[in-house]
Amino acid sequence: MNDTFNNRLTAAIEAKGSRVCVGLDPRYARLPEELRRSVEERVGEAHIIARAEVYRLFCRGIVEAVAPYAAAVKPQFAFFEQAGPAALAALVDVIAYARKRGLLVIGDAKRGDIGSTAEAYAGAFFSPEAPWPVDALTVNPYLGRDSVEPFLETAAANYRGVYLLARTSNPGAVDVQDLELKTGGPVWRGVAGLIAGWSGSYPGVVGAVFGATYPAELREGLDILAGVPLLLPGYGAQGATADDISFALTGANLVSSSRGIIFAFERSGGDWREAAAEAAQKMRDELNAVSAD
Amino acid sequence: MNDTFNNRLTAAIEAKGSRVCVGLDPRYARLPEELRRSVEERVGEAHIIARAEVYRLFCRGIVEAVAPYAAAVKPQFAFFEQAGPAALAALVDVIAYARKRGLLVIGDAKRGDIGSTAEAYAGAFFSPEAPWPVDALTVNPYLGRDSVEPFLETAAANYRGVYLLARTSNPGAVDVQDLELKTGGPVWRGVAGLIAGWSGSYPGVVGAVFGATYPAELREGLDILAGVPLLLPGYGAQGATADDISFALTGANLVSSSRGIIFAFERSGGDWREAAAEAAQKMRDELNAVSAD
Repeated sequence: MNDTFNNRLTAAIEAKGSRVCVGLDPRYARLPEELRRSVEERVGEAHIIARAEVYRLFCRGIVEAVAPYAAAVKPQFAFFEQAGPAALAALVDVIAYARKRGLLVIGDAKRGDIGSTAEAYAGAFFSPEAPWPVDALTVNPYLGRDSVEPFLETAAANYRGVYLLARTSNPGAVDVQDLELKTGGPVWRGVAGLIAGWSGSYPGVVGAVFGATYPAELREGLDILAGVPLLLPGYGAQGATADDISFALTGANLVSSSRGIIFAFERSGGDWREAAAEAAQKMRDELNAVSAD
Repeated sequence: MNDTFNNRLTAAIEAKGSRVCVGLDPRYARLPEELRRSVEERVGEAHIIARAEVYRLFCRGIVEAVAPYAAAVKPQFAFFEQAGPAALAALVDVIAYARKRGLLVIGDAKRGDIGSTAEAYAGAFFSPEAPWPVDALTVNPYLGRDSVEPFLETAAANYRGVYLLARTSNPGAVDVQDLELKTGGPVWRGVAGLIAGWSGSYPGVVGAVFGATYPAELREGLDILAGVPLLLPGYGAQGATADDISFALTGANLVSSSRGIIFAFERSGGDWREAAAEAAQKMRDELNAVSAD
């Protein structure tokens, strides 16, 4: 791991022939019943420990199943936090396992705080002693440059990447990100401009999150963020299709899907690992069939 | 705990005669040497466990010392995350201890994500089974209404509060929050307007974070956010004084200081607990001396 994140990302996409990023969102109520059984037999502290262990087993199973078809996995920290410190310890194992299986790990944590606090967060994810050593992390830019720089600096020093939120995939994205600026264009365009600038200062480090659910905005975003690797969430369960975003399937851009892959067994029946593998393969093929590259 | 957060907050400020909120930011290198010694004697896993235990002891010591002079404490999750799952488990204990000592606990985590993920975060902090059952949580509003509502709903159902970021205390706040809107005024004013609206929909639940380091903006913010409890960081180490913000010392507003209180022993020498107690008492008195109430 002694090359920039962007180079490692490009290499992973080429090696796998895939732009698929699989979101690891262990929503407890939707986990396979065979896994939940061991949790529901237990109470108190044992229940908490069993739940964390089930998160670990589920995520490892998914990682193993999708490894041939995906370039990256994206654990969503919220679901691990919901289940407490034991689940966050399980996530340490999941990250190590995914990296061992040759997958890039993008921590979806959307952290962001004032400078000296951002340094502590950067330490949690990027330092040599980081408890959760992810290849890249999602970061919220609302607090501005001095809140982002500690992430960028620690990432640069340790060959990691930072995906800044530009335009998110949810309906409420319009509330703040689409407020019209005096200089013309919405807030997200101003933020995208800042991200492009930071990318120049920290080459190979900076990426941007751009919702696949807003193709018109994505077209503009591609322009402003030329050369910045995009992480495009919103595929599958949130509604975006390969055709919607074919023009964005270039460079080192990744497309992310969570529920559509990890809970594919709900639709297909059968083994949850096999269903996830098939769904990841299908998504890879759908994206490659329309890719502009 | 069967009254709204805002009412509980008002009661706490009155009962203590204090608007002081003490930030719990365990920066390892600045902890008292007597505590760090037990960590540095150990290696590997034992080092990690010892560090978490020292965070627990330090924060408990501070909580005990400042309890007579503060209405609330504000653990900053970044510093606990930096030290891994064991430190986050220690934070569970710190939260329980602070509440037992009659302090409100404001989790400073600045979380924020799309709706279904925000639900998971809300579960981590507000649900009856929350691993970190804080009285209130700081939340980043950049993702808009559907990213905020799961926090507000879960908070309302469980008598908790949500502090949305309006204008932060750091220099970089200008980069995004001060972009000028077409309708007039900066982005933060648009966001403050949204927060005021959410406060109407979720009475007793919504607060706002407003940097004490920008008094001119704070004056405007007080207007837009009339009746919304403000959390004012930036006092002390970041540079704001009581005189700067005297006009904002009304209603259920809290002023937060971290380094200036918890590391007061660096300046004063002597016992770190006594130094923190004195600093908290001094801050309470300085605020009360100029309070507009």
